[in-house]
Amino acid sequence: MQYQLFDWRHLVSLAAGSVERIVVGDSFITHEVPGRLPEHRERDCPDHRSALQLVLDTLTDPKVGVLTSAAGIKGIGHRVVHGGEKFTQSVLIDQEVVETIEEMAKLAPLHNTPNLAGIRAAQELLPEVPQVAIFDTAFHQTMPEEAYMYPLPYEWYEKHGIRRYGFHGQSHLYAARRGAALAGVEQDRANLITVHTGDGVSLCAIRGGKSVDTSMGLTPLEGVMMGTRCGDIDPGIIPFMMNQAGVSAPEIDLFMNQKSGVAGIVGRRVSRRIVMNEANDGDERCRLALEMEAYRLRKYLGAYIAVTGKPDAIVFTYGDGWADWPVRGLALAGMEQFGIKLDTERDLLALMGGQEMLISADDSQVKVFVLPTGEDMVLNEDVATILGWRDLPA
Amino acid sequence: MQYQLFDWRHLVSLAAGSVERIVVGDSFITHEVPGRLPEHRERDCPDHRSALQLVLDTLTDPKVGVLTSAAGIKGIGHRVVHGGEKFTQSVLIDQEVVETIEEMAKLAPLHNTPNLAGIRAAQELLPEVPQVAIFDTAFHQTMPEEAYMYPLPYEWYEKHGIRRYGFHGQSHLYAARRGAALAGVEQDRANLITVHTGDGVSLCAIRGGKSVDTSMGLTPLEGVMMGTRCGDIDPGIIPFMMNQAGVSAPEIDLFMNQKSGVAGIVGRRVSRRIVMNEANDGDERCRLALEMEAYRLRKYLGAYIAVTGKPDAIVFTYGDGWADWPVRGLALAGMEQFGIKLDTERDLLALMGGQEMLISADDSQVKVFVLPTGEDMVLNEDVATILGWRDLPA
Repeated sequence: MQYQLFDWRHLVSLAAGSVERIVVGDSFITHEVPGRLPEHRERDCPDHRSALQLVLDTLTDPKVGVLTSAAGIKGIGHRVVHGGEKFTQSVLIDQEVVETIEEMAKLAPLHNTPNLAGIRAAQELLPEVPQVAIFDTAFHQTMPEEAYMYPLPYEWYEKHGIRRYGFHGQSHLYAARRGAALAGVEQDRANLITVHTGDGVSLCAIRGGKSVDTSMGLTPLEGVMMGTRCGDIDPGIIPFMMNQAGVSAPEIDLFMNQKSGVAGIVGRRVSRRIVMNEANDGDERCRLALEMEAYRLRKYLGAYIAVTGKPDAIVFTYGDGWADWPVRGLALAGMEQFGIKLDTERDLLALMGGQEMLISADDSQVKVFVLPTGEDMVLNEDVATILGWRDLPA
Repeated sequence: MQYQLFDWRHLVSLAAGSVERIVVGDSFITHEVPGRLPEHRERDCPDHRSALQLVLDTLTDPKVGVLTSAAGIKGIGHRVVHGGEKFTQSVLIDQEVVETIEEMAKLAPLHNTPNLAGIRAAQELLPEVPQVAIFDTAFHQTMPEEAYMYPLPYEWYEKHGIRRYGFHGQSHLYAARRGAALAGVEQDRANLITVHTGDGVSLCAIRGGKSVDTSMGLTPLEGVMMGTRCGDIDPGIIPFMMNQAGVSAPEIDLFMNQKSGVAGIVGRRVSRRIVMNEANDGDERCRLALEMEAYRLRKYLGAYIAVTGKPDAIVFTYGDGWADWPVRGLALAGMEQFGIKLDTERDLLALMGGQEMLISADDSQVKVFVLPTGEDMVLNEDVATILGWRDLPA
């Protein structure tokens, strides 16, 4: 359970942290307040309610807290992974919304179920505080039919909701806004390709400021090669492996999500920095993993340029700890036929992270930017808008 | 079982045809000789040997045949679907080759098993005649590692041969030759994207005359949307459907191969001409099917341009009855950012089929050609080369 306490009046984050190992045992909270040392506390959290209680206790703790009482909390925003086709934007949570999120849990049981547990815990512990749901899928609900439908039996869509939904919506929306601003075009006229970098990687094709395609699909497994997820493969491999090697459906799902991607090729889960170093030291598998990751990303960039036309900019955003993703530069090298010319020196500097950077050459027809993701800010703004705070003086 | 009798000395096809419904019953032969009416004969063929016997009897039949005796057959070329990593080119068949093809049947049981039955039948009925195997996968064996490896556990490649092999090799090779010649570049310097059109569709990225990537993978299921095959989908859909709808692995394989693609969206298996007509009459599902097919093809073209750089040409080849594939023009429209400019009038003319056509505009930077596939000619040439006939005067 991740949390952030945000002061909307002063537009500043007061505290942030996470509770790990809820339900499974040995749970603990890591709590960070800007300018102080991080706080680590262990306390058993058998469910999401006790985890949220631990968060509230920590936020109001006389020594490490930042609030005198939980009454200081005026609104709660919940990140919900799957909004299906029902939610095209963030909403105030009421009973109907809870029930709809519950329905959507069919599409993403691993994610929506804990999201719901968090909402219910907040309803119990802070019953007077209005709550807002922000959906990872909402930004992509503008995709046209030819982009979101799969070439599968049409009844699978009607009966089981099998279609492309996409994820990382807040991050792509943030990238679209900043990309348009940095490229000097109005947001609702911007044609962009945005790439979210982290444990999961996804691309979004943006035309006129709107998502028109994205690489993740029904699940976050589709698309480019990731740290432990395979991304696109021949779908025929799955029945083949089940048949030849006797692998079961849940096992193959686990293999594709947790033991594939870079980890599958390298043979273990390691940071990209180590993969890069070992590739430079001559490790063949590490070299292959990076080349595959870059090659597959480059093909997606080409495919999305076929969707957007020549984009105003390509925008790479990254989550914490992902500024130094070496694949970015590898994939962009040799894309001159698309009017993309990398400035390798700028790209090297961008690996240090921390700020918005232009990494294309001055004579590149397509601008390329790298920036820290601001998905939390999108969440805060949606909460403020829905709760009517946006007229408050900053 | 398809066959063709080719006269290498005069470079002319003497007869061609097929035996249908071998093993399953009610089998028959359709036999065509240029300039005569097609011949249809029913005869029970419980196995491939009896089917080949029917072919030989028909070829030497006093009324409908073209040979006085089977002794006129001096060499046999067998199309074999899966050559795995063992075969990078066509080979003279000996016992070792047969055993290797048998091994490869693990990778393509539906195809290699009947291919082998055909080889054995020919060995029995024409024991003195040398035989050559031509592999659908051989042309693609020049792909680099980053293109053929999947981001899956590396052991799956080592133990089970899970990698991209690609298919339609003879057709892509033929397209590469003709494309280079028509574009006026030497074959071993040509950068091309070739598209094979038929029941199955595949693309090939060609750099320096060699296949460097192709859209079909371990199986012919991967890639663009096809008539009844889905092509690329979120691999997470498969365990999801198995879990949610209780579909078994063989069932889902059948769904993806035979009830997906255009047939999946439209709800039945119909020709693209009917789909096009009904789309024009306002049928929403038919419109969607065509838009999806074109959209997915366009993304592949963009992806492959990211691989080849600006190609010398894009070459569409088609098998019998597939000249009027409307998706070609739909996919190429709006590709100006890649220097591709379609001449719609030429494209309409090309739908009539029958000859090699340039369909790009005169000021298109990338030339686009449409031509009937010559995969049979590639097979004939390989047989002639391997049997030492290529010095014969034409």
